[in-house]
Amino acid sequence: MSSNSFGALLRVTTFGESHGPAIGAVVDGLPSGLEIDEGMIQRDLDRRRPGKSPVSSPRDEPDRARILSGVFEGRTTGAPLAILIENRDADSSAYEKIKELYRPGHADFTWDKKFGLRDWRGGGRSSGRETAARVAAGAVARRLLERAGVEVNGEVAAVAGIESDAERMEQAILDAREAGDSVGGVVEVRAAGVPAGLGEPVFDKLDARLAAALMSIGAVKGVEVGDGFALSRARGSESNDAIGEGGRFLTNRAGGVLGGISSGEEIRVRVAVKPTPSIAAEQDTVDRDGQPRKISVKGRHDPCIAPRLVPVAEAMVCLVLADAMLQHRARQF
Amino acid sequence: MSSNSFGALLRVTTFGESHGPAIGAVVDGLPSGLEIDEGMIQRDLDRRRPGKSPVSSPRDEPDRARILSGVFEGRTTGAPLAILIENRDADSSAYEKIKELYRPGHADFTWDKKFGLRDWRGGGRSSGRETAARVAAGAVARRLLERAGVEVNGEVAAVAGIESDAERMEQAILDAREAGDSVGGVVEVRAAGVPAGLGEPVFDKLDARLAAALMSIGAVKGVEVGDGFALSRARGSESNDAIGEGGRFLTNRAGGVLGGISSGEEIRVRVAVKPTPSIAAEQDTVDRDGQPRKISVKGRHDPCIAPRLVPVAEAMVCLVLADAMLQHRARQF
Amino acid sequence: MSSNSFGALLRVTTFGESHGPAIGAVVDGLPSGLEIDEGMIQRDLDRRRPGKSPVSSPRDEPDRARILSGVFEGRTTGAPLAILIENRDADSSAYEKIKELYRPGHADFTWDKKFGLRDWRGGGRSSGRETAARVAAGAVARRLLERAGVEVNGEVAAVAGIESDAERMEQAILDAREAGDSVGGVVEVRAAGVPAGLGEPVFDKLDARLAAALMSIGAVKGVEVGDGFALSRARGSESNDAIGEGGRFLTNRAGGVLGGISSGEEIRVRVAVKPTPSIAAEQDTVDRDGQPRKISVKGRHDPCIAPRLVPVAEAMVCLVLADAMLQHRARQF
Amino acid sequence: MSSNSFGALLRVTTFGESHGPAIGAVVDGLPSGLEIDEGMIQRDLDRRRPGKSPVSSPRDEPDRARILSGVFEGRTTGAPLAILIENRDADSSAYEKIKELYRPGHADFTWDKKFGLRDWRGGGRSSGRETAARVAAGAVARRLLERAGVEVNGEVAAVAGIESDAERMEQAILDAREAGDSVGGVVEVRAAGVPAGLGEPVFDKLDARLAAALMSIGAVKGVEVGDGFALSRARGSESNDAIGEGGRFLTNRAGGVLGGISSGEEIRVRVAVKPTPSIAAEQDTVDRDGQPRKISVKGRHDPCIAPRLVPVAEAMVCLVLADAMLQHRARQF
Repeated sequence: MSSNSFGALLRVTTFGESHGPAIGAVVDGLPSGLEIDEGMIQRDLDRRRPGKSPVSSPRDEPDRARILSGVFEGRTTGAPLAILIENRDADSSAYEKIKELYRPGHADFTWDKKFGLRDWRGGGRSSGRETAARVAAGAVARRLLERAGVEVNGEVAAVAGIESDAERMEQAILDAREAGDSVGGVVEVRAAGVPAGLGEPVFDKLDARLAAALMSIGAVKGVEVGDGFALSRARGSESNDAIGEGGRFLTNRAGGVLGGISSGEEIRVRVAVKPTPSIAAEQDTVDRDGQPRKISVKGRHDPCIAPRLVPVAEAMVCLVLADAMLQHRARQF
Repeated sequence: MSSNSFGALLRVTTFGESHGPAIGAVVDGLPSGLEIDEGMIQRDLDRRRPGKSPVSSPRDEPDRARILSGVFEGRTTGAPLAILIENRDADSSAYEKIKELYRPGHADFTWDKKFGLRDWRGGGRSSGRETAARVAAGAVARRLLERAGVEVNGEVAAVAGIESDAERMEQAILDAREAGDSVGGVVEVRAAGVPAGLGEPVFDKLDARLAAALMSIGAVKGVEVGDGFALSRARGSESNDAIGEGGRFLTNRAGGVLGGISSGEEIRVRVAVKPTPSIAAEQDTVDRDGQPRKISVKGRHDPCIAPRLVPVAEAMVCLVLADAMLQHRARQF
Repeated sequence: MSSNSFGALLRVTTFGESHGPAIGAVVDGLPSGLEIDEGMIQRDLDRRRPGKSPVSSPRDEPDRARILSGVFEGRTTGAPLAILIENRDADSSAYEKIKELYRPGHADFTWDKKFGLRDWRGGGRSSGRETAARVAAGAVARRLLERAGVEVNGEVAAVAGIESDAERMEQAILDAREAGDSVGGVVEVRAAGVPAGLGEPVFDKLDARLAAALMSIGAVKGVEVGDGFALSRARGSESNDAIGEGGRFLTNRAGGVLGGISSGEEIRVRVAVKPTPSIAAEQDTVDRDGQPRKISVKGRHDPCIAPRLVPVAEAMVCLVLADAMLQHRARQF
Repeated sequence: MSSNSFGALLRVTTFGESHGPAIGAVVDGLPSGLEIDEGMIQRDLDRRRPGKSPVSSPRDEPDRARILSGVFEGRTTGAPLAILIENRDADSSAYEKIKELYRPGHADFTWDKKFGLRDWRGGGRSSGRETAARVAAGAVARRLLERAGVEVNGEVAAVAGIESDAERMEQAILDAREAGDSVGGVVEVRAAGVPAGLGEPVFDKLDARLAAALMSIGAVKGVEVGDGFALSRARGSESNDAIGEGGRFLTNRAGGVLGGISSGEEIRVRVAVKPTPSIAAEQDTVDRDGQPRKISVKGRHDPCIAPRLVPVAEAMVCLVLADAMLQHRARQF
């Protein structure tokens, strides 16, 4: 019941603040004998790096994952696999100026209400940087899934309401930056090769786990499975997936989950990503004493978080699926 | 890690199949001294009953909740509170005819793949009837919340894509029934009086818990918090909630949760409810041997589940909030 | 994290007070297809019944286990298996007289300090009656173990310090009863056929789980594995179990557990059972206002609980082993 | 349900192998505002160090604890507190020679049976070194307890069956070393100032948690609370603790726990520590192919582990009590 841990049998615990010495993840419950090296973790971490396209922040953030335990001679041993990522480039001076202010759209206000104090340097534990530990842990889960023939891929499905047209999406992001503003988006993740039978009724349904996993990402405000909210506008005759000979579904509006259990069809989830809350435009806020103040959040912030969120959402889906796979295995007595 | 249990400190375990002898719930972790009687549980159960409006099924299903433990002289003792609801009116003959077939949109196929056998009578454990146990447990959580000044209310926000117009919603449901079809909808739940500070970073964010809770309801295919998916189409300057003097938010697009912690504003969540999968219209499916068959699901099914889902969604929100309240309490050292 | 639940993957939740309407257990996480009927539960429950020998209490307590869910056509379905045992013969009048007093050796005092009120009828939730639910759940776990070739048996190993001599043990109990007193004892449980490899390092070692399981039984004050406390007086050359050809241990002082993982040898645990705290002899105590009072606990109490504790200790061992077996299975990827 | 995690609300996750790059602990669930520095962790770690008395191993093992997260300006923030201890002095050559053999009394055999491979360097994850992470985490819990007025102290209560006479104990250890052998012992831990009311019925009784915590330490084979096994030889009139005016117990044979809940009296637990399994004397064993072999475990091993186990047992008691305190707090609604 640790709130910085996730999963039932494949259990990930993360730690670390944005401007502290390091962040990291401990992955417990792994089967032994799984081939793991730092390179495969690094690959996913690199995909999360900023500064790789004109629409992301120019910040240099070279995350290096180091495996501290749980792997011997290239294979998992059954012991917890700990990954450490040291923090660099942590200049907290920009935050010092606004440490008494609550940035709108951020956790500053609520964290303070809950804990009475906060590490204001770079957002502390609430920073998006925390997701690097998720990505590292997710890479390990992805390895497990690959061995079972499951492949997980994500993409930006929409930016600022624009779907499918990559050029217009990019333009919308550049326009927002120009205006000292930001935009939201939608990320979609698909998992192919998932066998039927994963997920546990009643409360640990596969889609309930996916929803928790994805909604736990800072900027996410909505999750839908398969056709999701569109189904709320449909009729049953349009929404049911008919089943064809041999037990293959003829359509997949359900997104690969029926009654909380995987159907063998492709798993498909979408998340709503809110616009980056850090914007240069002036906003109304208060200080810790409740006095009205103006704030303009300067710095190297991505005007749209959706692209960087893709590997994070993939990581969470990997963690959920790998965990469900282990849990399903335990039932096979 | 029991998949039929929900919650961290306020922990609910449910059991029971649609046509078995009884269903029930065990609520553990309650503070002592809380005034509880069967009447308050019954009131919420009655709201879930079908047969009360022209748009719901005519079935007579008089659920009677009986408290078996955990209450002494009208107050909780700190021992687990068990609630039993005996099943009546369980005629399984209609199901006998289709027990070898997989009903599209139901868990028949996936349950069979997972467990190798299933209780086909009335949907067994996957039946919507399971939610009666949730509603009973939720009534206990609601009592706890009331004592803390929190009020939880839900409503049907949309039917078949129609918002706000109750008459047109009702007509859409009646039209669907006429056509041997069904329609989906949206249910919204609001919680007023929630203090700032509930929810635990990183993975047990309040909205992550709400998402899991709501997505675990059978017919739900999407969850959004606050303005949800609409935020994916907005700019940061429109989406951030500015903060006014004394720390009151000037808007509440975030739906009362920031960084996974309650902000003190009204909590607002919406769920996408798919159309009732049981429809009279003929559908393609297969039998347990994978042979193509036609199926038409007869019986007294609600053409739209959204109205009956309102107390269920409320119950889940109550359980999440009460649990978060206890968990937050543990931090106050 | 429900304190009335036990186990990781095979998860048991119990409820009910001594003089309430019923007690029960919900067993979750079971594989499907396991043959279960009420008879096999009843057999273990009957072994726990009092009134079957001259040394136990004459009370008539005919527990009837009723399966409410999770079994269909004689086999588990994967849904939670709920067992209900209704309470009869609940005359609370004897307790009414002492409801303001704290019985020495009982949980009256501490429960009151913790919860501020208590169900004083028959000891409420702290009554030994609670263990009937454990025995019922344990019978289900025993079934699972049998299928894997594991057999669990317990016996009274000592009474009042007397070992091996059944007649002298019985005499010691009768002497104590005569004197309005009671005696303690030791119960030993052995599990044969346990495969090597069960138990999870570091904190969920098999012996750590067994210790928790057994110490959670009301009257137990000590647990030892294998030669236990005797090993604290030995030398390493006497205490290590040498290993012979093919990997069979030549001795089994370790009691079948090495480094928290089963070794393939017989599991052997012993628990110290304190004397029945309810004695006729007059004792000093206080009332709820802290005022000194005398108390003499009349009624039909077993002068030695050890014999009735045998099936309870067996049940707990069964639950731990079955759970460890499922958990081990999840690792076999 | 992570097996390398411990605790319900105060949740500790440890990782690391004896000869890997580092070991560490993540402590989650801490209240914010607690004053913590590396010095107080170091103090407990130093007490665990070997080489400080003639009866312990001469190995130089300078553990340095480094806090990586969760503390800001000297106070806990509510974020997980990660502690890293880098490994030095890790010469694995002595282990290389016996890597194909199973050392009697060690986890080599069982770990191999469970996981199919093992990190044989210095015992890998099964090494006593793992307990350094427990001691570090325990120091944080101790800090929390101190603020609540609770003090936890341990001592060696017996060596080789000798109680109370420190000189004879020391001589027994030196004699064993001389003989290329080792001896067992008993460690006792007491906690003063524990308020009445800690511990959760039924399965999370305070003594059940203590038993699990202590039995999870590698060399421990038995746990008793209060007078423990001696109570199994007593009569009820001798074993019940009478209660005096104002609710103070007149004796404390129960060891401060009644019905699984703390009574307000001193908590007293004892653990049986088996003799160090690594002995120079020749023993029978087998290699990984099951072929008979002789083994003599050379190296700098403590001939009695009991003294070094004192801070480890204290740490586990601190973790259990601090956790129970938080959990009890959650009930105070």
